[in-house]
Amino acid sequence: MTAASPHTSVVIGCGTTGTSVALALTRAGVEVALIDENPQAVSEAVAMGAGAAWTPRHPPADLVVVATPPSEVVDILYSAQSRGLGHVYTDTAGTKDIVSAEAELRGCDLKGYVPGHPLAGPEAPGPSTADADRFTGRPWVVCPYETTPGRALETVAALIELCGAHRLKLAPHVHDRVVAELSHGPHLVAAALAARFADSSPTFLGLAGPELRDTVRTAAGDPWVWSDVLAHNAGPVADVLDRIAGQLARASAILRDGDDLAPLELALALEEGRRGQADLGVADHPGTTRDACTGGRV
Amino acid sequence: MTAASPHTSVVIGCGTTGTSVALALTRAGVEVALIDENPQAVSEAVAMGAGAAWTPRHPPADLVVVATPPSEVVDILYSAQSRGLGHVYTDTAGTKDIVSAEAELRGCDLKGYVPGHPLAGPEAPGPSTADADRFTGRPWVVCPYETTPGRALETVAALIELCGAHRLKLAPHVHDRVVAELSHGPHLVAAALAARFADSSPTFLGLAGPELRDTVRTAAGDPWVWSDVLAHNAGPVADVLDRIAGQLARASAILRDGDDLAPLELALALEEGRRGQADLGVADHPGTTRDACTGGRV
Repeated sequence: MTAASPHTSVVIGCGTTGTSVALALTRAGVEVALIDENPQAVSEAVAMGAGAAWTPRHPPADLVVVATPPSEVVDILYSAQSRGLGHVYTDTAGTKDIVSAEAELRGCDLKGYVPGHPLAGPEAPGPSTADADRFTGRPWVVCPYETTPGRALETVAALIELCGAHRLKLAPHVHDRVVAELSHGPHLVAAALAARFADSSPTFLGLAGPELRDTVRTAAGDPWVWSDVLAHNAGPVADVLDRIAGQLARASAILRDGDDLAPLELALALEEGRRGQADLGVADHPGTTRDACTGGRV
Repeated sequence: MTAASPHTSVVIGCGTTGTSVALALTRAGVEVALIDENPQAVSEAVAMGAGAAWTPRHPPADLVVVATPPSEVVDILYSAQSRGLGHVYTDTAGTKDIVSAEAELRGCDLKGYVPGHPLAGPEAPGPSTADADRFTGRPWVVCPYETTPGRALETVAALIELCGAHRLKLAPHVHDRVVAELSHGPHLVAAALAARFADSSPTFLGLAGPELRDTVRTAAGDPWVWSDVLAHNAGPVADVLDRIAGQLARASAILRDGDDLAPLELALALEEGRRGQADLGVADHPGTTRDACTGGRV
């Protein structure tokens, strides 16, 4: 622990991310109080050892983590700050540009709020898929305001360290483009592919190989969790979808034209895909915390 | 072995599929002679125990397996039949409508040829990824002509049984629609997604999670093997791509409109994808050989 390490914390939202944060903090010796609009979720998280149910008798915590869908973050943050639940606040929502702008417009206390997003895989409602090791070795993006005091940043950095993640500072709009490319766009593409197979005959589906099951696996994600995230990252995600749709339309045109160059043109497009797949496979998670990549081409 | 089981065979084409067939047949006690335009590939396959190099001194074999890309099947089949390499012929190409029609137009002996396609995952040039168990439990489609004699069918059925696969009879155009939906279309979609990541910064790619790596994994496939297959299944693949492109354009429009119903509309689309993913996950390979599903909705 560092000097900025929290001793007490409140986690609001006992889904996969919130409960995983609570489990990691509890394991690190931090006292955790849990809040969720669903009392059953709190009970489950408490039973998993994620902390205790929050009560109004709790004194202000060193750190409050708002782990809700993007559409709920700002209202909850404003309310929590108004009630004095803690000293430093962060959130874990999967989009950052709208959330951080709305927090400013809503009049939240920006001196005590560091927008954040741990990149750690599928989110589900309720604590059942939570895991204290969920963030180990994963990137955790922070999008501080220009005016964010060092002390607030250090507290959130300590949270990220206690969770075993790698901190990466990004501008909010850069974060949103990155996740649109790496996660939100691909998720919608996989869902579009998978939709074809709903209610299909088992004989037909039985002919599918493991490659197809890999390709559409992410479509298993919770539709409501995802739709909230996607609607909060509309422009960047739409840009990705338009680009992919254009690529598919071009490939379709090559196939329908069917001239002698079609195999060559297709092979060149596939070769680009193979290179991208290989580059993606080689790149591993950043091994060290870094404050970089705040703009420009990614 | 049944009465129709081959005792001798010739395998033409020592890529993944051809060499795997040869390994499975050799293991089952069938005498296998190997042919490939690349002598190095034959040597490697022989060294792997897939059989012996074919020589003109070999008598006509009970079964000849043409395991080449679709664009080469018909010329090789015609030539092999003209030279009397065997009695019964089959192929393993990933498309069947054009191949079976061209074999007829070219004047191949249809009484001794049963078009076929084992559905068994990524193909690579050369024998290095071959495996005697490649076809175990997998579907193997046959597309006999109406005039195919029972004896030729039985020999190919024996091949499929010796390879441990499940035989499924389909009309050629139905086969091609099925593989367009389950394999060819999804492959191009994954390649289109993956192409974005070629030459991207390691910092950016390091933020990708395992979900994205699953989604684009199939894009690792050999571009030239794939482009030949895709160009031979142009219409059905283009139909799949057009449909997916349309779905992505609709999702993009929902996002850009950004009205209050956007999250609901997105969630409904994602729910359809989730159902398709679940149905696909539940459906397993057909457990028994069947002669069905020759037309209609799949």
